[in-house]
Amino acid sequence: MDSTNGSQTLEAQAKAFFDSAPPLQNTHQITQKLDHFIQHSSANGEARRIVCVTSGGTTAPLEQRCVRYVDNFSSGHRGATSTEYFLKAGYAVIFLYRRGSFQPFCRSLPDDPLVECFEPIDELNIQVREAYSEAVKRAIVDHHAAVAGGLLLKLPFNTVFEYLQMLQLIATSMRCLGPCAMFYLAAAVSDFYVPWKDMVEHKIQSGSHILDVQLVQVPKMLSILRKDWAPLAFCVSFKLETDSNILLNKAAAALEKYKMHAVVANELTTRKEHVVFVTSGDNIIVQRDKSHSGNDLENPLIELLSERHAAYIKDSNRQV
Amino acid sequence: MDSTNGSQTLEAQAKAFFDSAPPLQNTHQITQKLDHFIQHSSANGEARRIVCVTSGGTTAPLEQRCVRYVDNFSSGHRGATSTEYFLKAGYAVIFLYRRGSFQPFCRSLPDDPLVECFEPIDELNIQVREAYSEAVKRAIVDHHAAVAGGLLLKLPFNTVFEYLQMLQLIATSMRCLGPCAMFYLAAAVSDFYVPWKDMVEHKIQSGSHILDVQLVQVPKMLSILRKDWAPLAFCVSFKLETDSNILLNKAAAALEKYKMHAVVANELTTRKEHVVFVTSGDNIIVQRDKSHSGNDLENPLIELLSERHAAYIKDSNRQV
Repeated sequence: MDSTNGSQTLEAQAKAFFDSAPPLQNTHQITQKLDHFIQHSSANGEARRIVCVTSGGTTAPLEQRCVRYVDNFSSGHRGATSTEYFLKAGYAVIFLYRRGSFQPFCRSLPDDPLVECFEPIDELNIQVREAYSEAVKRAIVDHHAAVAGGLLLKLPFNTVFEYLQMLQLIATSMRCLGPCAMFYLAAAVSDFYVPWKDMVEHKIQSGSHILDVQLVQVPKMLSILRKDWAPLAFCVSFKLETDSNILLNKAAAALEKYKMHAVVANELTTRKEHVVFVTSGDNIIVQRDKSHSGNDLENPLIELLSERHAAYIKDSNRQV
Repeated sequence: MDSTNGSQTLEAQAKAFFDSAPPLQNTHQITQKLDHFIQHSSANGEARRIVCVTSGGTTAPLEQRCVRYVDNFSSGHRGATSTEYFLKAGYAVIFLYRRGSFQPFCRSLPDDPLVECFEPIDELNIQVREAYSEAVKRAIVDHHAAVAGGLLLKLPFNTVFEYLQMLQLIATSMRCLGPCAMFYLAAAVSDFYVPWKDMVEHKIQSGSHILDVQLVQVPKMLSILRKDWAPLAFCVSFKLETDSNILLNKAAAALEKYKMHAVVANELTTRKEHVVFVTSGDNIIVQRDKSHSGNDLENPLIELLSERHAAYIKDSNRQV
């Protein structure tokens, strides 16, 4: 798809994508969870701001009975960390995450926390290792408080088909929130996929010396999210590049093309130190405060976003 | 590579693969760990049998600064479970596993065990949830006993480059064990890769409508493992197919082609219920004992393997 394609073409592409996608499991339960979460969050007096944070990479299967797939690298660190700061800023968070990616409140823990953070006292009793004691306690207490308090709803995905179908469900459920809804799209979504119907059913055989995989572009759903799914919501997307020379231009182009309210531009190697917050009015460099250890870039980033979102809500209400 | 290729061609392919691979990090430390583990395990009176269990899927990067890669589906359940039964059968285990895949003693736990299995008592104290109490305790106590007892060495990988370089290191270190060494190759190794030097340095741009990825076949290292790396070791590989019609023929072909001592043939949907243990002498169907819950297919499978390996050691010693 090039930029000269009209919206009708994009919508046709989106229709083809969804028509070809394997149907999402448990659609009804997910919708019920979402509606309950949104109602509960909004019930406390004034309308609460709710953000949908997407996190981790999506996969594009190469076979229907999936053995091989193309994956995007993304630990989910940005999404998990941002979720913590959104909660701190008073948001309720719908956390749409890749299975196995970083979870909020757990990002300072090792890969296999159970066997790394605990040790046996004897044959029957276990304890937390001294070095992890505080981190483990905070993870469990804070995570539990957010979930039990109805402030954090976690929904997992694997494939790009699941991701986009769930994003649509979430956007539809969040429509009632108008401008109080935010989308913070930190997931690394596959740019290319193999249409389900074109996929071989069985495992690709390794008889030939060369495997030639042809993937087609995933429709740019950001446009559809803004236009159809959640026209009043405040939308923030991410641009990750490994080549800093093209980063800002690509971020500005995305802002314009998908009508985002902000684009966070980050470079692969420096993304935990600084990002550029790109809006139609200004480019702001957001930096991690290095004066204290344990300070995250997401702290000033979410503060800035929360301010801009508040101004956006005020503006929207003034117009009504 | 087709089957008419001579061994010289394969060796040239292997050389090209390793020459093109990014150098493995920490080679020296890994070798030290391996040598210490093997010496320690062999020191207890008679020579202990040591098995290298490989587990999980490997990735094939599509970009040097890796954002996208082709991945193989494999939870690592087979490798993790088998490791437990190998330990039970008296083996020491070198567990070469994909980061994030299932770990021995932890496979009955949920995806995010820390936040799922524990709960806060109050703001400062946590406890294991009743339902997970036994599973969590067993995981930590048994895992710790195996590692602290010098019976389990865990080495993680991500890419097919890391996997094959580490497998070579392990095989080289295990050579001193002669026939007491076993390779149990349960990892789902990429069949195709993009040679490092052919890879683009930066993220592939999504400007065009079609992405055409050309991958070349990963050299069949099983042959080289048997011939050069570990000529005396007992070698078991796996054949996973989604199409049961071709499974047994492919397993028999692999047995012959790579000179394996056994090939475990499994079909994607029934792989936890039954497999076929294929050797040059016989095909044995191995089934999970359904009379008790919690019985694993790996229980009879590892028992059978341990017997065959013992007979192989006896035979080898007789020939010397």
